[in-house]
Amino acid sequence: MIEAAGRELGPKAVVTDRAEMEPWLSDWRGRVHGEAPAMLAPATTEEVAAIVRLAARHRVPLVPQGGNTGMAAGATPPADGSAILLSMRRMKRIRIVDPESRRAVAEAGVILANLHDAANAVGMRFPLTLGARGSCTIGGLTSTNAGGTQVLKFGTMRSLIAGVEAVLPDGSIHNGLSGLKKDNRGYSLDQLLIGAEGTLGVVTAVALRLVPAIAARAVAWTGVGSPSDALALLRFLEARSTAIEGFELVPADSLELVLRHVPGTRPPLGGAHPWHTLIEATTVDPRVDIAAEIEALLAVALNQGLAADAVIANNEAQAEAFWRIRDTISEAERAEGQTLAHDISVAVTDMPRFIIDAKAEVERRFPGVIASGFGHLGDGNIHFHVRAGDHASPDWYEAEGAAITRMVDDLVTAAGGSISAEHGIGQLKRAELERLAPPGRIHALRAIKHALDPLGIMNPGKLVP
Amino acid sequence: MIEAAGRELGPKAVVTDRAEMEPWLSDWRGRVHGEAPAMLAPATTEEVAAIVRLAARHRVPLVPQGGNTGMAAGATPPADGSAILLSMRRMKRIRIVDPESRRAVAEAGVILANLHDAANAVGMRFPLTLGARGSCTIGGLTSTNAGGTQVLKFGTMRSLIAGVEAVLPDGSIHNGLSGLKKDNRGYSLDQLLIGAEGTLGVVTAVALRLVPAIAARAVAWTGVGSPSDALALLRFLEARSTAIEGFELVPADSLELVLRHVPGTRPPLGGAHPWHTLIEATTVDPRVDIAAEIEALLAVALNQGLAADAVIANNEAQAEAFWRIRDTISEAERAEGQTLAHDISVAVTDMPRFIIDAKAEVERRFPGVIASGFGHLGDGNIHFHVRAGDHASPDWYEAEGAAITRMVDDLVTAAGGSISAEHGIGQLKRAELERLAPPGRIHALRAIKHALDPLGIMNPGKLVP
Repeated sequence: MIEAAGRELGPKAVVTDRAEMEPWLSDWRGRVHGEAPAMLAPATTEEVAAIVRLAARHRVPLVPQGGNTGMAAGATPPADGSAILLSMRRMKRIRIVDPESRRAVAEAGVILANLHDAANAVGMRFPLTLGARGSCTIGGLTSTNAGGTQVLKFGTMRSLIAGVEAVLPDGSIHNGLSGLKKDNRGYSLDQLLIGAEGTLGVVTAVALRLVPAIAARAVAWTGVGSPSDALALLRFLEARSTAIEGFELVPADSLELVLRHVPGTRPPLGGAHPWHTLIEATTVDPRVDIAAEIEALLAVALNQGLAADAVIANNEAQAEAFWRIRDTISEAERAEGQTLAHDISVAVTDMPRFIIDAKAEVERRFPGVIASGFGHLGDGNIHFHVRAGDHASPDWYEAEGAAITRMVDDLVTAAGGSISAEHGIGQLKRAELERLAPPGRIHALRAIKHALDPLGIMNPGKLVP
Repeated sequence: MIEAAGRELGPKAVVTDRAEMEPWLSDWRGRVHGEAPAMLAPATTEEVAAIVRLAARHRVPLVPQGGNTGMAAGATPPADGSAILLSMRRMKRIRIVDPESRRAVAEAGVILANLHDAANAVGMRFPLTLGARGSCTIGGLTSTNAGGTQVLKFGTMRSLIAGVEAVLPDGSIHNGLSGLKKDNRGYSLDQLLIGAEGTLGVVTAVALRLVPAIAARAVAWTGVGSPSDALALLRFLEARSTAIEGFELVPADSLELVLRHVPGTRPPLGGAHPWHTLIEATTVDPRVDIAAEIEALLAVALNQGLAADAVIANNEAQAEAFWRIRDTISEAERAEGQTLAHDISVAVTDMPRFIIDAKAEVERRFPGVIASGFGHLGDGNIHFHVRAGDHASPDWYEAEGAAITRMVDDLVTAAGGSISAEHGIGQLKRAELERLAPPGRIHALRAIKHALDPLGIMNPGKLVP
């Protein structure tokens, strides 16, 4: 298979050097390690199709991979070396950026930050963004239906995708890039491929919606009494302004960890508050003084007791400093010690209570741990992290991790929520999906997988329980 | 099977009287006639599940049906009476209308106009609308991924759906109504069921996004020189206002037919123009004078030569009169004589040229016919209708119809477009889909259908070639 690929695609597309493959054989968190006899790196959709046909003929599974920044080990090959790594990073062409139709077409290997820049260069904007923007790729974002910090206004990747080009497991090319705004010719393969984590085919390019570039933004930080107060503040702002596009919840202990471990960070407010929110508002109209608008709204909110204190960033540097606090919480936690991450969602209105109750229940059941929910409150999606605490043994993660995760997932399921809000299932959440999803759903997932990939060559061992 | 359903669901749920079934055995256009030994009318999701389980046990296919207003005979049973009609019209409860979370949950049999009213009663709006709003149902709109006149701003049904509840072919209930804004637990069954025309399961309820109610609307009519001028006018307006939510193209001959056949209609403008546009702009802010805003923009557009003449409706009655012209074009065509309808799309920028070229080519190949494209220019979706003309024989539709449709579909396919923009495939477009879709796509549609409905009991003979 590897030799055949070399003959068909040329030596540039085939990597077998172990050292060169090394960084791509483990997941981003370094928790899951795989092996692969080779890494194939096609440069075109036709080359991907040729590889998939070879994989089908030789019955060798493929593991598609973009920036390898996923949080569920969905792009890490199996440990037994039975699969070949399919790096999409050479497919990095931005084929179209068209301000008139507000569309871009980017290949799977395009790095998110590069798409941001390309859109910006023509006065437009691709609004989805997240911490890994400098490494994550459009193909990976599509295959995981990624979220990020601007979902409140623009939705997840799914709502920004206008079409998908992919190589299906039979080697045929699905071309959904036609740019049609309306097309009802049967089941939407585009929608099926979004969030499929490479198990139904290889996404090779994506048509994306653009929005007008931002003329100005205002970034504010507030101190609030509780998650419920934070949600009330969000509702207050949303009812009075369409400019709110980011609203992140930060607990006091997350802020403390960042201040302790991340150099150059400073507290945005003078006093102490049990909870904080980071608010971003934008305008595309240069005549609008967005900072003044948000300042006026926050003044009323302070008067009404919805927030205890608030500050608006004076300039872009300060705005970036506020965002840096939010973006480095996970990094600060890792510096502090062992951490278990859970990316979960419940209905937005249920989230404030969930954050408080789940923290109390987990800390009661597992004495010594510190549980903490932070992130996208307005999407009903928080990262519910559980830290080992001071007295934990070095093998705490291995010893207690699975039991804690099961408890968190049980709490989420009992609340009608999702055990994977934006990170996907990958390898890490497969057992929990099987344990908690209704049998009819598991049956449907398996049936679709088997129907489209009967040979099981597309990213085996991921997503489908 | 029918007796078993009677025993399980009670006599109210079972109709076997031929006269009572009669209106539901033919499609809305009266072109396709079916037969069925019974019509089952469940009142709850559990009753639907019981019926599907019976259908699976007895191997009797089901044909789900809402308001029976579909344009592709997707809800008409087969002529041999082998299937049972599944009327969803008793499932007409609006379970939730919540202004705070901007969500509604409506059962499949809820009539669109009733949902409009329910949303309006709490200061909100469900923005999708179309001519059949007084009869069509939420289940049918979901299963056909319906479009309509406000897609320009709000998208098709797919983009307004937050979740789907359905009974899958194995009788299990898929509950996608959780209200989660982020949920990445594997393939999206919701997205697969949208537009599946009842072939993968029975949609029983849908969670829908609401938007704030309109404070005021402005409806304008313009005369323009060509479809290309019309598109330039739309781009001009969209670049200067976010209020445009409807933009319909009407050719002179469509207007003439309406004035001739529809009582009480009057020409909106004094002079004659080869093409017209109907424009709707709305605001949710009562302080905005939307009519003045649009009037000012149209004055500039007239000055720049983007339109030849324009008028803004003085009041709601006049606004309704403008819309009545647009909404009665098909009715006027039928009064004039035999008409072949094609619901097609191409990329928006290609549409002006397509309208002109396709008309010329069809009229040249089939002398005597009159071809005319009208409708949703801003979505790249027009209804390309071909009329028999004066000299056609009474069997023109049967004699030439298929050949004309094949030609139109070939032109659309050559232009990279879709032979079904918003009406779906149903029975009427199945052969053309098979003729024109890539083999890989046909294979994928069949594989998904067989995987989820191995017994073939869900709306057989529809959508999947």
